[in-house]
Amino acid sequence: MALLFASPDDDPVAWTQALKRRLPDLEVRVFPELGDPRDIEAALVWLPPSGLLASLPNLKAIFSLGAGVDRLLEDPTLPPNVPICRMVDPALTRSMAEFVLLHVLRYHRDLDVFEAQQRRAEWRLHLPKPPEATVVGIMGLGELGGAAARLLVAHGFTVKGWSRSRKEIPGVASFAGVHELDAFLHDLAVLVCLLPLTAATRGILNRALFAKLPRGARLVNLARGAHLVEADLIEALASGQLAHATLDVFATEPLPADHPFWRHPKITVTPHAAAYSAPESGAQVVCENLHRLRSGEPLLHRVDRARGY
Amino acid sequence: MALLFASPDDDPVAWTQALKRRLPDLEVRVFPELGDPRDIEAALVWLPPSGLLASLPNLKAIFSLGAGVDRLLEDPTLPPNVPICRMVDPALTRSMAEFVLLHVLRYHRDLDVFEAQQRRAEWRLHLPKPPEATVVGIMGLGELGGAAARLLVAHGFTVKGWSRSRKEIPGVASFAGVHELDAFLHDLAVLVCLLPLTAATRGILNRALFAKLPRGARLVNLARGAHLVEADLIEALASGQLAHATLDVFATEPLPADHPFWRHPKITVTPHAAAYSAPESGAQVVCENLHRLRSGEPLLHRVDRARGY
Repeated sequence: MALLFASPDDDPVAWTQALKRRLPDLEVRVFPELGDPRDIEAALVWLPPSGLLASLPNLKAIFSLGAGVDRLLEDPTLPPNVPICRMVDPALTRSMAEFVLLHVLRYHRDLDVFEAQQRRAEWRLHLPKPPEATVVGIMGLGELGGAAARLLVAHGFTVKGWSRSRKEIPGVASFAGVHELDAFLHDLAVLVCLLPLTAATRGILNRALFAKLPRGARLVNLARGAHLVEADLIEALASGQLAHATLDVFATEPLPADHPFWRHPKITVTPHAAAYSAPESGAQVVCENLHRLRSGEPLLHRVDRARGY
Repeated sequence: MALLFASPDDDPVAWTQALKRRLPDLEVRVFPELGDPRDIEAALVWLPPSGLLASLPNLKAIFSLGAGVDRLLEDPTLPPNVPICRMVDPALTRSMAEFVLLHVLRYHRDLDVFEAQQRRAEWRLHLPKPPEATVVGIMGLGELGGAAARLLVAHGFTVKGWSRSRKEIPGVASFAGVHELDAFLHDLAVLVCLLPLTAATRGILNRALFAKLPRGARLVNLARGAHLVEADLIEALASGQLAHATLDVFATEPLPADHPFWRHPKITVTPHAAAYSAPESGAQVVCENLHRLRSGEPLLHRVDRARGY
């Protein structure tokens, strides 16, 4: 069995080594060196060129290098009957939860306010509050959102979560579905988006949603750029309905140099830096799934194509 | 017994209420309404006017509202034989540890680098590292530094501490005294200063110390402005020996509007915002000490004037 590795962002040498340490007999081919495409039964990919997966006649499984599979599913040439698995990597999960904690702490301790004051050379104290007094809402309580929520609870924040179906996470108030969205949003100091990108969540961070937050709330989007309606964010920051936003993901990445987000005084831009799967820990779940593929057992972290994640 | 409360920064009403909830028979007098100074046996103070404490003939104890007592000890009119106690308040300790975690996370996740990139509209990823790969050094492992070190260990950072005498904190490599300072500094990614200000620590954050850090280290000073030699910091940032600094304390506070720190692109200024004692939790230790004063038991958190903390 051969596995095809194809990613513009991940290191093929480190991944090949990590995979072969666990499965020495695995043949890894790194795009664009496919060899005979008929040999390839599995593909480990991030943003593969359109048509590449369709060109593999014996493909039995597609493993995503990223947690989100929205870009894969958007490709009209995607083979319709090959199972797809999301990346679930402890290092990626930990890195994402850590990034959420960092940005929630920044807002909880008013660093955005102090940065604005520094630009004016203004010395004005805002007394620290206990973390219980800061209500944080996480949209999306899957692998990543659930881990972030647990870390925030451990730190002492008041944590609410919103997802398609209700979740049981100790210390997290769980809200489910569109009917509970208003109750989820109404008292949040910080809103964190970790939703999968689907037809139901595209553009969900919009004017109507912002209006349901308390005035002066802060937004953190670490999911996908397409969750956000950009013009609505600019408007909400101008009116003061939102006080500040941190964006790690964008409709177009890299964010074009002339995009207004770069120079907006109330927006922090980070270059899709929240979390990456690490070869050493990420190879573990890929190899487990390769083992299951060989022995005919059900694959882990399989994507429901209709649901979109 | 009467207690005098005097502080330009703390709320006298909240403190009086919190004290009287625990000791209903305590008489609290709020500066400048002293009444008969002979009634006053204890003083709870932050930056009291010089000469005030000396004007109280029956003063038996001085309780600081702040964790640091350097400003009190600098006052030549300070009554020489009255015991002084530091503030040890769980809310203050927690707030300080949280502020340390926030700034260490900021540097660990390269937010200072991303902020500089944002000013240039530059999209460049720096892959996240696991927290174990970031070595953090805390100078001062007392009440505040010890709590900060424990929180950083809990998060997964590699933590070293430096103090006058060796400390036993699980997971923290403890270095003691001037002879171990170089070994403490040589591999730090982030240096956090939480030292008491004494003759031995004044100006300790200077050119010679910066030179012992790895090139590109970051500095966080949350202790006192006088720990830092300002010109040496500017020089170390210009040469690249230090990559960035976060300063919460300054030689002159408020930091004057024309001070170069405000506009330095590699310095984050916060307005002495790391931690404040909270009336509810802080009153607890004050009342315990008032009880001990009445019954002749030894006071808690007593300052050693010769040592300076």
